[in-house]
Amino acid sequence: MTELNHTRSRRASGGRAARHAARAAALAEDIRPIRAGMEGGRYRPLTDLQVERIHGAALRVLEEIGLADAPQSGIEAMEAFGAKLGDDGRVRFSHQVIEKALSMTSRGITLHGRDAAHDLHLTGTKVHYGTAGAAVHLVDGVTGAYRESTLQDLHDAARLTHALDNVHFLQRPMVARDVTDNRLLDLNTVWACASGTTKHVGVSYVDAAHVYDSAAMLHAISGGENAWRARPCISQSNCFVVPPMKFATESCKAMEAAIDIGMPVLLLSAGQAGATAPVTIAGAVVQAVAECLAGLVYVHAIKPGHPAIFGTWPFVSDLRTGAMSGGSGEQALLTAACAQMHQYYGLSGGAAAGIADSKLPDMQAGWEQATSNVMAGLSGLNMVYEAVGMHASLLGFCFESLVLGDDMLGQAMRCVRGIEVDEDALAFEVMQSVCLEGPGHYLGTAETLARMERDYVYPALADRSSPGEWAEKGAPDLVEKAAAKKRAILEGPNPAALPADVEAFVRSRYEILL
Amino acid sequence: MTELNHTRSRRASGGRAARHAARAAALAEDIRPIRAGMEGGRYRPLTDLQVERIHGAALRVLEEIGLADAPQSGIEAMEAFGAKLGDDGRVRFSHQVIEKALSMTSRGITLHGRDAAHDLHLTGTKVHYGTAGAAVHLVDGVTGAYRESTLQDLHDAARLTHALDNVHFLQRPMVARDVTDNRLLDLNTVWACASGTTKHVGVSYVDAAHVYDSAAMLHAISGGENAWRARPCISQSNCFVVPPMKFATESCKAMEAAIDIGMPVLLLSAGQAGATAPVTIAGAVVQAVAECLAGLVYVHAIKPGHPAIFGTWPFVSDLRTGAMSGGSGEQALLTAACAQMHQYYGLSGGAAAGIADSKLPDMQAGWEQATSNVMAGLSGLNMVYEAVGMHASLLGFCFESLVLGDDMLGQAMRCVRGIEVDEDALAFEVMQSVCLEGPGHYLGTAETLARMERDYVYPALADRSSPGEWAEKGAPDLVEKAAAKKRAILEGPNPAALPADVEAFVRSRYEILL
Repeated sequence: MTELNHTRSRRASGGRAARHAARAAALAEDIRPIRAGMEGGRYRPLTDLQVERIHGAALRVLEEIGLADAPQSGIEAMEAFGAKLGDDGRVRFSHQVIEKALSMTSRGITLHGRDAAHDLHLTGTKVHYGTAGAAVHLVDGVTGAYRESTLQDLHDAARLTHALDNVHFLQRPMVARDVTDNRLLDLNTVWACASGTTKHVGVSYVDAAHVYDSAAMLHAISGGENAWRARPCISQSNCFVVPPMKFATESCKAMEAAIDIGMPVLLLSAGQAGATAPVTIAGAVVQAVAECLAGLVYVHAIKPGHPAIFGTWPFVSDLRTGAMSGGSGEQALLTAACAQMHQYYGLSGGAAAGIADSKLPDMQAGWEQATSNVMAGLSGLNMVYEAVGMHASLLGFCFESLVLGDDMLGQAMRCVRGIEVDEDALAFEVMQSVCLEGPGHYLGTAETLARMERDYVYPALADRSSPGEWAEKGAPDLVEKAAAKKRAILEGPNPAALPADVEAFVRSRYEILL
Repeated sequence: MTELNHTRSRRASGGRAARHAARAAALAEDIRPIRAGMEGGRYRPLTDLQVERIHGAALRVLEEIGLADAPQSGIEAMEAFGAKLGDDGRVRFSHQVIEKALSMTSRGITLHGRDAAHDLHLTGTKVHYGTAGAAVHLVDGVTGAYRESTLQDLHDAARLTHALDNVHFLQRPMVARDVTDNRLLDLNTVWACASGTTKHVGVSYVDAAHVYDSAAMLHAISGGENAWRARPCISQSNCFVVPPMKFATESCKAMEAAIDIGMPVLLLSAGQAGATAPVTIAGAVVQAVAECLAGLVYVHAIKPGHPAIFGTWPFVSDLRTGAMSGGSGEQALLTAACAQMHQYYGLSGGAAAGIADSKLPDMQAGWEQATSNVMAGLSGLNMVYEAVGMHASLLGFCFESLVLGDDMLGQAMRCVRGIEVDEDALAFEVMQSVCLEGPGHYLGTAETLARMERDYVYPALADRSSPGEWAEKGAPDLVEKAAAKKRAILEGPNPAALPADVEAFVRSRYEILL
């Protein structure tokens, strides 16, 4: 919230505003009630036995069904690693091969921010929320109008993400539909995202060649190849499989290129229960786990130890229509179950939550986004992708929703933080003093004042005033408030702008359309 | 949903509507994907040790601080039970006295519906969602207008609750502000609620005398005193304490009257963290647990074994203003922690969730209501009070929100149902067949079709269509859709109307203002 508060305090005038600004400024990093990477895990949708059974089924799937359509380079690497190519062209994996890959996998990947303050340490049950997706529309939250998303939208999404405290990373949420050349699309996507935030950035590539083409830009952004390889601040989101159980040949080549240039990979398996994955939650998780385990073999067969996020992203179909339903309870369960599987393997993992099926930032969107985000957080999912701004079952991205989602994610993160129980928190002495000696209430006690900012999260835009106060303010519309905050951020300076020499280099070397 | 579907099928015309009606009709009770009383408990915000520490602190509070202001009748009963009256007028309880009360407490209270199909079996981690509260305003969800709530509103809330599948009980959500006489208020509240639904009803009483006054009405509603005492379908929500740690003298007398006439009691402790309860989540839970344990002693001292719901309802203050914030993450944690304490004691318990601070059914309301409802459900809270329709931090009740909340609660209940893991669900054979022999997708497999209605929940009003389909429909507004459904229910017949002779008797005996 740093930049935002600065903006605020510059604008503030008068006593109340000054106090607000002072309070915001006083929230130093060490006493903030919530921050990225708080630990979840108190919600465990699966029993230990159920986890074992899903693991066992995934191993059987890998051994008996295997995956088709690996590129020749992948087949050779995986065979050398111990996998077997069958006469049917499918690569199959014994449990020894899977265990070998698991043993090579880093148990605590760090996804770096351009600013190290935004590094994401993906260990244990640490939770991080961020954007993701490939929406093709930008939704005007106020009017409800859908239009094709643009490169400028992508850059704006990066800038908004940068300003929002509880959005911890930016994975490209929209496709720049105004860039029709695939090479220019991939290269400009990197630039539009990376020049708008110092948080970690995830992008996708259509073609392996574009990965190599982008390397000079990545190096420039990081301050040189060595700096890039030491702290890569951009990862590749890679749909390396076409569920069920087929490698995505071209994507696998882009993955190999990422590994080659030192770019972390998100191994993304996005089956859809009832369509491209089994209809049951357990079955969809089995398939996603099996596919991602195969992906781990692939990665480590190419380069042992390369950082790869275990991206089990099973989605849900509305079986009446076959359409996706990311806003469903079934989706929330799928994602939470995946988090538990990641923890079983000790892997840094990610999955999708926070998707609204609603077209607008309305009440439906609120309950859809909160349900899955809260469950993902409580389950201890390391990377909660699609957590914010995503509407129409991933087809539309909405800035007003992104801005409001920061409040929603703050609340979810407060829930993830959970409950401290120690002598102070149990509060016997305070209770004794208040009841037997004191004023009969806890307002203004030292304990209350001390906890006011360390323990409690206050939303930025969500309204907690009484009906009377709210009416006096003119019954402000939530989405319009979000639109105003969006404009204030985008009309202000870009605190994440890259140095002028980096920008000049990139613009001289690449055709930047922004 | 029975009544609603009947209404729909009567209105339906044409093939698509007929198919919709047929599908709804086909969902017989045994294959419904969700129902009242599904078991939660996979989310445990507290460790076992933390639960023990909260229990230990509560015992110490009861032994050393005790409660003030018990009425003389309560003091005498509790002293006879083993509690000690101190020179300071406070009643204190040894752990032996608490254990004695716990041993007398039924471990599985049933709250009866007038229709036994709506009985609530409050054992283990079974979850039920319903209304509650004492809102003083009715909110027009479409215009945002607040006005004082009326007796007719209360009756309408009962009728809507009756029609909504995922709202499992009706506790009086609003105060009939147009009934200024307290006696008439209490008596008419019973009638307005009970004549609108056959689900279990909870009411409050201002005065013990009104409890006795209402007995003839309760008997008439149940079909006689014996039937009433066998299956009381109306319980008394009783704020028996004024936190911190004081009995509410008049409410305690109303509780004694309820016990006398065989009416189940909700022992409701509604402290507000940072104001009337300790600021910490753990401390607020300690105090609520201590107060409710004292309440159990009181109940069993009056009549051993009388059904009493353990109603730890700690609320949250926004410490910037001291106002309540029921929509916060802190609230969701408080409620979930209480559920775990109920399970520790093996008690039938309830707490508050689903409260929106937002004044309207907007995105904020959606995320606020979903966060706490989902966490309450996953924690296995038996009675989730305030779960639906509640806005402005309990000051306003909204019919459109109630109607939409049915979808939200259906989604929450799907999450509570959780994940089945058995051979069928693991889906190895299906996966093998689809990948190695079949069409390469799961659409239309026997497994998919069989699971379509048994496993998946479909919302009634929430929109899952694509942006194009949605635009073609004229971009329907969610709240206006809810308002239309509300009108359809209220303009239709009252399927829960009491028999004419019962109504005639009640109207002859009481001054019914409805």
